Amino acid sequence: MKSITLFLFALIAIIAIVNGQSPNIVPLPQSLNYGSTSVSVNPAAFKIATTSSSTLLGVAIKRYQGLFFLFDGAVQTAPALTLNVQVASDNEDLYLGVDESYTIVANTGSLTLSANTVFGAMRGLETFAQLISYDPIGNAYSIPYTPIKIVDSPRFPWRGFMVDSARHFLPKNFILHIIDALGFNKFNVLHWHLVDAVSFSVQSTTYPNLTKAAYFPTAIYTHDDIEEVVAYAKTYGIRVIPEFDIPGHTGSWGVGYPELLASCPNYAANVNNLALNPSLPYTYNFLQNLFAEMTTVFPDEYFHVGGDEVVFGCWQEDPSIVQWMNNNNFNLVDVEQYFEDQLDTILGTLNRTKLMWNDPFQNGVNIKPGTLIQIWDSYSIVQQIVDAGFKALVSTTWYLDKQDPANNIHYEWQDTWRDFYAADPYNNITTNQDNIIGGEACMWAEQVHQLNWDVRVWPRSIAIAERLWSDQSVNNPVTALPRIEQYTCLLGNRGVASGPLMPDFCYMSNDFSGPLVKAIDPLPKHLIKKILGKN
Amino acid sequence: MKSITLFLFALIAIIAIVNGQSPNIVPLPQSLNYGSTSVSVNPAAFKIATTSSSTLLGVAIKRYQGLFFLFDGAVQTAPALTLNVQVASDNEDLYLGVDESYTIVANTGSLTLSANTVFGAMRGLETFAQLISYDPIGNAYSIPYTPIKIVDSPRFPWRGFMVDSARHFLPKNFILHIIDALGFNKFNVLHWHLVDAVSFSVQSTTYPNLTKAAYFPTAIYTHDDIEEVVAYAKTYGIRVIPEFDIPGHTGSWGVGYPELLASCPNYAANVNNLALNPSLPYTYNFLQNLFAEMTTVFPDEYFHVGGDEVVFGCWQEDPSIVQWMNNNNFNLVDVEQYFEDQLDTILGTLNRTKLMWNDPFQNGVNIKPGTLIQIWDSYSIVQQIVDAGFKALVSTTWYLDKQDPANNIHYEWQDTWRDFYAADPYNNITTNQDNIIGGEACMWAEQVHQLNWDVRVWPRSIAIAERLWSDQSVNNPVTALPRIEQYTCLLGNRGVASGPLMPDFCYMSNDFSGPLVKAIDPLPKHLIKKILGKN
Repeated sequence: MKSITLFLFALIAIIAIVNGQSPNIVPLPQSLNYGSTSVSVNPAAFKIATTSSSTLLGVAIKRYQGLFFLFDGAVQTAPALTLNVQVASDNEDLYLGVDESYTIVANTGSLTLSANTVFGAMRGLETFAQLISYDPIGNAYSIPYTPIKIVDSPRFPWRGFMVDSARHFLPKNFILHIIDALGFNKFNVLHWHLVDAVSFSVQSTTYPNLTKAAYFPTAIYTHDDIEEVVAYAKTYGIRVIPEFDIPGHTGSWGVGYPELLASCPNYAANVNNLALNPSLPYTYNFLQNLFAEMTTVFPDEYFHVGGDEVVFGCWQEDPSIVQWMNNNNFNLVDVEQYFEDQLDTILGTLNRTKLMWNDPFQNGVNIKPGTLIQIWDSYSIVQQIVDAGFKALVSTTWYLDKQDPANNIHYEWQDTWRDFYAADPYNNITTNQDNIIGGEACMWAEQVHQLNWDVRVWPRSIAIAERLWSDQSVNNPVTALPRIEQYTCLLGNRGVASGPLMPDFCYMSNDFSGPLVKAIDPLPKHLIKKILGKN
Repeated sequence: MKSITLFLFALIAIIAIVNGQSPNIVPLPQSLNYGSTSVSVNPAAFKIATTSSSTLLGVAIKRYQGLFFLFDGAVQTAPALTLNVQVASDNEDLYLGVDESYTIVANTGSLTLSANTVFGAMRGLETFAQLISYDPIGNAYSIPYTPIKIVDSPRFPWRGFMVDSARHFLPKNFILHIIDALGFNKFNVLHWHLVDAVSFSVQSTTYPNLTKAAYFPTAIYTHDDIEEVVAYAKTYGIRVIPEFDIPGHTGSWGVGYPELLASCPNYAANVNNLALNPSLPYTYNFLQNLFAEMTTVFPDEYFHVGGDEVVFGCWQEDPSIVQWMNNNNFNLVDVEQYFEDQLDTILGTLNRTKLMWNDPFQNGVNIKPGTLIQIWDSYSIVQQIVDAGFKALVSTTWYLDKQDPANNIHYEWQDTWRDFYAADPYNNITTNQDNIIGGEACMWAEQVHQLNWDVRVWPRSIAIAERLWSDQSVNNPVTALPRIEQYTCLLGNRGVASGPLMPDFCYMSNDFSGPLVKAIDPLPKHLIKKILGKN
């Protein structure tokens, strides 16, 4: 009556979680050397010091000062310690390829984190947090396994996570919570799938009627909200890339601006069939103005314009579009080409680099050189795209919504983490691997909102985070399992609702008592006895 | 880049959720009549009145007085209203088959809930809570669709939910939270899988060393904890059935009492292979004493003794057991028969009825008449068991841990609710259907603890709850979907982390902000601007 596969580790795991056999770091660093000396840590006499004047690094240091010591009231007998954080530059520019390397040296009396950039220092702070161990029996902190030397840097410069706030609106505070968890996992791109056929929740001052398609009057991201998200993400070294998915998936745009959409009544029963009208200058003028507004709040060089799953039948049903096609001697690929060419012009005026899904490439559209292409459906398309000279992001088999993301059945649903872990971006890619600059996990949100988001994403995406950061050779799920399991407990204690992957015990602070761990109305003692007839 | 199947309903669903087209009740009552008049409700002038002096009903009424009005500060202009709760008997005895029927009549000025028992009244209070609608735009409560008449009672008397607190220890307060959610869904049995091979977390005063196999010194259910759980469950009309799974799955018992276990070193690497020693009077004496102690805190007539997945090879490797078998001319089935016979004797002395998994029946053991058998592996075994004259509980395809519980693949994982919904206990049962007295959903917990339990269980188990309560003819997933979807939002607002099943918007109170919906350390406004270089 129970799972066939998992049971072996429990009693061993209890001990391992209290005190593992090696530093437990996720994602695994490129180089890790350690000894066997445990250094006691007094949380009341622990400082993080830096000569950097970076605001970003200051925020990160303040955050980790809290994250280093999650459990209150621990023993305070050990001598004072200071982690010295040294950065070569205080430059706060965040961009694709920014240096994220760092080095940690931890000896008995000396703790040093050094990095070229503030973003490398942030990565190192997370790693250092994972070096600190808490023993709930003795109620004491320590850094076991010193002397430690870690030299680390990411395998891929684009380690993305796609958040869909269109199928369900995610409150701004929940987006910040997502960023916390992404930062812990060393993801560095939040790909924000902001709008889709079913809702448009982004405030536009230029086109205020767009948010007529918001789910609720307060279910809107204002410019202030977006700025807070972008700034908060930056304190984790996370770039925020907006996606405005066009020309398909735009039914919601038509709620406030019907003239934007092609007219295809026979397709309209399914809002996902609707598409922008590619024949009108109005459409491109609208996009120019809207995107110009959006670049004021989304500073990153990259701008995602979707391009997936256009239902061409909708275009073909609109007589004015057919007329326009005939006038220009356009077939459907020509129309898509025309649309993408106009988009290239618009993005050019805004100094943005286009990021798009793989569909137009597959349809035969000539893609502008320099365009970054995200592949969602198969490894074979990845190969074609990199061979055509394009940089690529891989999301293949990293669809967190699917019941069987890699067409493998495990006994338990959560074991799909093994498929994510095995899905290396280089799998089946024989040439031009260097054109793959990273990948993205995708949490499509048809069946996800803030109450179940964490559990759908974690711990499974830990596997993706490690795949994108650690060396390609770090691919053994047997050795990864206990490491990920221990990390999932840490995430839990930080407030991320990450489930376990095997029977064990995760010690949680008494303070960790959200809405999930309390009764609505507990009974007083006398009533318990009375109800049981025992008084 | 998104799911293929779900998208149609969103914009319609927004409206429907604010104000559906009929009373939205889950599980669907046996009889529901309604009109089209909306009665405004003033939450500050709403009372629940009863002449009953039942303590249990008093607790339930106090609870629902809060659950009726989840959002603060609503409009208070409507006239005062009273829900009159009438019960024919104040008897508080809770047992299999207790009358759970109730009737609700709601007219403009008159609201009545009547029931034969306090437990029927509890079911009616939950239904009544679902009649009250909140409009977040107008910030006002109402009872739409009056006049309403509901006459309701359950299809099955045993609507169980199995909680595994052995693979992961679930804090007592979280068990209470589980009970809240089970009560909302009109489940009436908590089958508590307390111990297993990997842990023994139940305090025993008779055998205190058993909890040497607890995960952690505080990860123990004391007698007081158990009494609180049993009492709390009773305030929802939920019976608590303990499971002590024997003779297999008992590795943890041997941590404190090694002499209980058969000696099979070649099997011991997998703790799940270990089994009680069936040849020693010591074993049965131990069980007699332990179970006698447990019946002091578990008052229900039924007592689950597992019986599944015994690894006979472990018995066959123990020379003393082989000798004993030879002395008695026992084969393995004889040994299992002997073990179960001794158990029957023990349970007889304790006035408990045996509940067990289907394995001994399949192995050919002669089962004592009156034993209740729970089937976990196939419909065909259900048929054999009911034809043999035994009462049966069906858990087939209701394994919430499995990636594909019914061997069906949907696009999205959560859509396995459809399989649960389709899994009627009578499916493929052609004779003796009446011997099926209900069923149980099972949440095996190898990959589940308090941080992800809710999301694994809800909303999928809503489908099981309705299958067990409502008429067999209520089986259309198309009409069930929007109803379940609206209910899942209600569960969310009550603190149950239930995800959605389709794109829509669930209005949540600002007060609903647990650890999942906040940033670790939000940025003050001046820092946001500074980070963005905009000050």
